[in-house]
Amino acid sequence: MAKALTSKTIDYSQWYNDLVIKADLADNSDVRGCMVIKPYGYAIWEKMQAVLDKMFKDTGHSNAYFPLFIPKSFFSKEASHVEGFAKECAVVTHYRLKNDPHGKGVIVDPEARLEEELVVRPTSETIIWNTYRDWIHSYRDLPILINQWANVVRWEMRTRLFLRTAEFLWQEGHTAHATAEEAMEETRRMIDVYADFAENYMAIPVIKGYKSANERFAGAVETLCIEALMQDGKALQCGTSHFLGQNFAKAFDVKFQNRQGVQEYVWATSWGVSTRLIGALIMAHSDDNGLVLPPRLAPLQVIIVPIYKNEQEQQQVAEKARKIQQLLQQHNITVKFDDRDTQKPGWKFAEYELKGVPIRIAIGPKDVAENTVEIARRDTLEKKTYSDEKVLEVVQFLLNDIQNNLYKRAIKFREENTTEVNTFEEFKQVLETKGGFISAHWDGTPETEERIKEETKATIRCIPFDQKKEVGKCIYSGKPSQGRVLFARAY
Amino acid sequence: MAKALTSKTIDYSQWYNDLVIKADLADNSDVRGCMVIKPYGYAIWEKMQAVLDKMFKDTGHSNAYFPLFIPKSFFSKEASHVEGFAKECAVVTHYRLKNDPHGKGVIVDPEARLEEELVVRPTSETIIWNTYRDWIHSYRDLPILINQWANVVRWEMRTRLFLRTAEFLWQEGHTAHATAEEAMEETRRMIDVYADFAENYMAIPVIKGYKSANERFAGAVETLCIEALMQDGKALQCGTSHFLGQNFAKAFDVKFQNRQGVQEYVWATSWGVSTRLIGALIMAHSDDNGLVLPPRLAPLQVIIVPIYKNEQEQQQVAEKARKIQQLLQQHNITVKFDDRDTQKPGWKFAEYELKGVPIRIAIGPKDVAENTVEIARRDTLEKKTYSDEKVLEVVQFLLNDIQNNLYKRAIKFREENTTEVNTFEEFKQVLETKGGFISAHWDGTPETEERIKEETKATIRCIPFDQKKEVGKCIYSGKPSQGRVLFARAY
Repeated sequence: MAKALTSKTIDYSQWYNDLVIKADLADNSDVRGCMVIKPYGYAIWEKMQAVLDKMFKDTGHSNAYFPLFIPKSFFSKEASHVEGFAKECAVVTHYRLKNDPHGKGVIVDPEARLEEELVVRPTSETIIWNTYRDWIHSYRDLPILINQWANVVRWEMRTRLFLRTAEFLWQEGHTAHATAEEAMEETRRMIDVYADFAENYMAIPVIKGYKSANERFAGAVETLCIEALMQDGKALQCGTSHFLGQNFAKAFDVKFQNRQGVQEYVWATSWGVSTRLIGALIMAHSDDNGLVLPPRLAPLQVIIVPIYKNEQEQQQVAEKARKIQQLLQQHNITVKFDDRDTQKPGWKFAEYELKGVPIRIAIGPKDVAENTVEIARRDTLEKKTYSDEKVLEVVQFLLNDIQNNLYKRAIKFREENTTEVNTFEEFKQVLETKGGFISAHWDGTPETEERIKEETKATIRCIPFDQKKEVGKCIYSGKPSQGRVLFARAY
Repeated sequence: MAKALTSKTIDYSQWYNDLVIKADLADNSDVRGCMVIKPYGYAIWEKMQAVLDKMFKDTGHSNAYFPLFIPKSFFSKEASHVEGFAKECAVVTHYRLKNDPHGKGVIVDPEARLEEELVVRPTSETIIWNTYRDWIHSYRDLPILINQWANVVRWEMRTRLFLRTAEFLWQEGHTAHATAEEAMEETRRMIDVYADFAENYMAIPVIKGYKSANERFAGAVETLCIEALMQDGKALQCGTSHFLGQNFAKAFDVKFQNRQGVQEYVWATSWGVSTRLIGALIMAHSDDNGLVLPPRLAPLQVIIVPIYKNEQEQQQVAEKARKIQQLLQQHNITVKFDDRDTQKPGWKFAEYELKGVPIRIAIGPKDVAENTVEIARRDTLEKKTYSDEKVLEVVQFLLNDIQNNLYKRAIKFREENTTEVNTFEEFKQVLETKGGFISAHWDGTPETEERIKEETKATIRCIPFDQKKEVGKCIYSGKPSQGRVLFARAY
């Protein structure tokens, strides 16, 4: 595979598309807006799933599975939910095809029309709360702490691989509680889980905060989010956790008898992350040579490439390579020895750089003679020769060091690209020249936020949890403000 | 939870339905034919997935993900496939809902009609082979060994939880090969993997064999299957592996340049198992007290139930229980200590019998005084008292022994319920009185098979791999036959 990525400084958007395709992560399909996740991309998703699934279970959640289809009428039951979700969605109207009597092929059988149309789930609050009605009667049935791994469909007009696709994979947690406090605690717990995952596995620093009313989930009382900064200065929402109040319980009549024997509506949360995280992972760390993956999520952590000129050298190098491979495997390091003789070492170097393998070990005849190996790290592209007995120690050190370095680099980038502004002029100028997060005073009204969005395409990413109380004036309206919020253009 | 299962000798079908609901495995949903898989049922599926996924990876396969939707026209491309699959399926015709101008609620927006309808995948051969066309050019691109974990939809008229549902979860392997031999080898390899899983994890003995032409997968040249016998004497197909020849390569124009530089069509296989296996697992081993789960797939392997009369006893028993719990956990045994004081020991005994937990440890004040525990096994309901220092050893022994015992019991049942017959009269009589597998001569024609099916509802489950060559006469037509095949009524 020839390296032919567009440089990200020339065209960031094209660089991203090139990278996703050339690193074999995903492909567009012939179905509008739907992607094919290729084995290498899916392997990253599996790594993410394994870590998240354990985190969910460690916090007391179980997995379950609810239907793909949702009766159309369910969407009308929660007023704001229908506005947000029922609009752009895939609708099943028939349940049979038949041979076309007038030609070749098949047609939809007009006699097989469904009495009530089914919507392919864009999210599952409605079908799940319709089910919880049968499961919840007493406070003894609470809390219910369930997560679902599933595909969902939202009919997006403009799609981009991983970042915005009509069908995507995700997990959605749906919990039911006896009190508002307990539900809010759960909402907060799960945004903390997501932040932990983003920072300690994806090596992406995130800002935790509240969404403004405009950006809130349709049907939520409060939406918490984690926001990250990509290398082009745009923000990406990496995960959300919603406090749904009693909205869905009221819509689906889910009540319980509390400890005092009184009937009450149940309190709810929902929270989710999706294959969009793969897009975030790519955009946060990668460079013009290709992907850069944090070792904790890399499907392959170490690649061994042999260098030789003749068969004898090949055998000696291979023998040494296999010993190192075994040694690393014994220490739970994922390592491959690429002994294909159909490709040259230079080609392999470029290929594994493109694929973002964190560590490359090259072994040639000189290394066999001198009991050494050459070890290169993907993040900085540095390489150095080590004696054989150091290999395990160096690899273990580097896996940690690369993980930490990616995080530190991303933190530094975010610090350099977060700007406090005090006027709308300044705001617009920073947005045009530098981008990034802009910390500014806002009067707290949806109208002002909407106008700023119309004029600049920037939105409030979040009201940070750690917002410091600081009296100021809204950059747009001049009205009083109690603290700064984070604006950015976003994916 | 009160034990109120219908006895399986009285009404097997009702017993099954009761069990699925009461053991909290699954529930019917408000969406026709679609089930909700509850946490306990889903935990069994996760166990199955983990084992199968490892088996697939150990045989060289990777996971990937393809779109949920398939353009209608794709189904017309493979002639026999369209007959088998395009008929009863969910069809998406629109991509938007809108507020009903004449009333409350939402309606399908007539302006948002899709140019080409999309079918919710009933199986993914078409969309995958349409994709493989772009991935395969040379023999160097082969083999492709991909598996997908996904949901699929088939619009079944009569549904039963796990056994036959409109939406179900499954895995589907789709592989591409340079030669017929290699594809056939793969087809065979995967049916062996399925048989290994069924016998060594599910503790269900299976017969491996070929499907007759009538029962073959739509689009396959050859279908291999594993067939198991349930406790009511009906057969259940547990997994299939298809040799697809070049049918899909021809339908989707997927060619490769072989080593000789000649363009050839690619050879294909596909293979799958589904959440139906949970139905098989339930039906193969369970009894009137509830589920009986093989220890290797049980979400919970050991339950510890405390028995006490006062607080002091409770504390002493709990202390001992926690020590045993820790000890077992250290040896990778999944164990729960049910210390709820809201339920009595007798209730807990019944509850965990219903849930099929393989081993129950009961600890009372006498056990504290005498350094003993009472251990009960779920398969035989035997219980016995052991001294404390034996606990780990006994539990480890029983986990193995229960696994083996379930398998042996199922083998014995199958042997007792497999009958050789030589006339159609005998065939019908055995079918009516005893059921089970019937081994009989068949003339090899689809017509005869069809007529036997019409008259008796029995089908050929498979032509066993180990069919012994034996000249005989077809029980129905009297025409010559080369060997016996296995008939049964089936799920």
